[in-house]
Amino acid sequence: MSESKGIAYCHGQFMPIEEASVPILDPAFHKSDVVFDAVTVCDGAFFRLDDHMERFYASCEHVRLTPPLPDAQIRSIMAQCAHRAGFTESIVFVLCTRGRYAGGAAFGDPRTAENELIAYAVPFFTIVAEPKMKSGAHLWIAQNRRAPDAAINQRCKNFNRMDLTAAHFEALDAGADQPVLLSTDGYVTEGPGFNVWIIRDGKALTPGDNLLEGITRKTVFDLCQDIGLEAEATDLKAEDLENAGEVFISSSAGGVVPVVRVNDKPIGNGAPGITTGRLSDLYWAKRADGWHSIPVADLLEPEEEQAASA
Amino acid sequence: MSESKGIAYCHGQFMPIEEASVPILDPAFHKSDVVFDAVTVCDGAFFRLDDHMERFYASCEHVRLTPPLPDAQIRSIMAQCAHRAGFTESIVFVLCTRGRYAGGAAFGDPRTAENELIAYAVPFFTIVAEPKMKSGAHLWIAQNRRAPDAAINQRCKNFNRMDLTAAHFEALDAGADQPVLLSTDGYVTEGPGFNVWIIRDGKALTPGDNLLEGITRKTVFDLCQDIGLEAEATDLKAEDLENAGEVFISSSAGGVVPVVRVNDKPIGNGAPGITTGRLSDLYWAKRADGWHSIPVADLLEPEEEQAASA
Repeated sequence: MSESKGIAYCHGQFMPIEEASVPILDPAFHKSDVVFDAVTVCDGAFFRLDDHMERFYASCEHVRLTPPLPDAQIRSIMAQCAHRAGFTESIVFVLCTRGRYAGGAAFGDPRTAENELIAYAVPFFTIVAEPKMKSGAHLWIAQNRRAPDAAINQRCKNFNRMDLTAAHFEALDAGADQPVLLSTDGYVTEGPGFNVWIIRDGKALTPGDNLLEGITRKTVFDLCQDIGLEAEATDLKAEDLENAGEVFISSSAGGVVPVVRVNDKPIGNGAPGITTGRLSDLYWAKRADGWHSIPVADLLEPEEEQAASA
Repeated sequence: MSESKGIAYCHGQFMPIEEASVPILDPAFHKSDVVFDAVTVCDGAFFRLDDHMERFYASCEHVRLTPPLPDAQIRSIMAQCAHRAGFTESIVFVLCTRGRYAGGAAFGDPRTAENELIAYAVPFFTIVAEPKMKSGAHLWIAQNRRAPDAAINQRCKNFNRMDLTAAHFEALDAGADQPVLLSTDGYVTEGPGFNVWIIRDGKALTPGDNLLEGITRKTVFDLCQDIGLEAEATDLKAEDLENAGEVFISSSAGGVVPVVRVNDKPIGNGAPGITTGRLSDLYWAKRADGWHSIPVADLLEPEEEQAASA
């Protein structure tokens, strides 16, 4: 096991993650002008890297950012981060930042900026603390609403998380693990870093609007097909969660995670749901089988080539 | 004139602003979990520092941040930034960031974080480029909407600016200087760093909802009283701007700035408005007279004391 806290690629160089930083005058900080994606590495292999990269480029395009390096080199840098950190279990982040531009904060022209790439690998982490991954999480429907797509397109993975953080405080104050945010119209959207699902009338249901379309959410649609369970994106209200037979969340940070309480109501009999368990087991079994996996080692360029192109 | 690009107080130390940065694993970056304020210094004196500090602490309180230093010391640090940079004309920023906390990104508890203070002074800048400050700006009503208070309370000055940046791109593409964003309900809110005003039927009108209540906006209310002009916060639509006799913006970054075009429509006769000019002249005349001003020099502690307490 490595003791590394992570390796970053930042300002064109690899470095210990503790040394990687963003200048305070960079719009990536003072305008949160940056998009990102996060890919898991388990047993030394990326999961659904193609899907994550496709979504990353869609996020970039939406806010008119252009990654400054070709795709193959970005993937290689991401692999290098995990490899150099010695991680076989990791979450690897890739970011595209606006970069600085002439004229500065007020009347500078962001169209002239040279966009920058940051990547980093950190040890694998889960969306709730380890014991709750099995015993089930407690979700809290926050009063603070999720910013609507008309203002901040949530299909674009971004760091404008003030709404998520306010909701997180509400959840913690209530003794819950994580918040779920409603849209300004009152429909369930998502939580910080995860999508939410219910099992009702023999169907798996998840919201479809004003949210990040998680790669694990996509994976759950695949898994439902595998086990012959109908799955559908549809509008859900807070009470649909409270009254569901089962509730679970999907996240790269842990896969399919049972939820046993929503607000003050236990879900079902208060234990993790049976279908949730089947989906979670299948998720990890298929990953162990190499489903949609690409070994980190396959993406490493020779050190010299990497150094020359960096 | 100093050649300094600015001085920052960051991680407990003063430094050239180019060296000040935020770690990429800090929630201030990857969750935009930070609030700020910005105070002008002209002729060596802060303007309305008390108002800015009051708003800064209100922003902090709203997102449950607690500045780690007493008010007098924060003001002294802000003064030191301008003083050490040699600026008599400056904009001084003060930020409170969440700081890092145990457990990290997914299930860490932000309530346990030790919040941090950052301050920095940069050369004074204006909201539009210098010639337009006199000849008048061209505003563009963006399609991208401002995030609603229910999600992100805009009275809390923050860096969640993805909506502002998208709107800025729209404005630049249209050949305009700055965007104005509508609320999701279709009412005028604000632009990036400024409030917007119209003169109609002998009254000065400005929106009142879903926006930052600018200190210069407050100042304009005062100035209107001085010249016997009724001023009111009210709902405005895009066409109210297009059809107004005069339009202007208010911002710490330049005071009262005429607007001569909104979308494709010239305002009035296409020249800066007469009332706008009166308000702008009065703004600068009163500032030159020392109105609401506190000399930077009055807030500097002896170097030794500062060093000891840093």
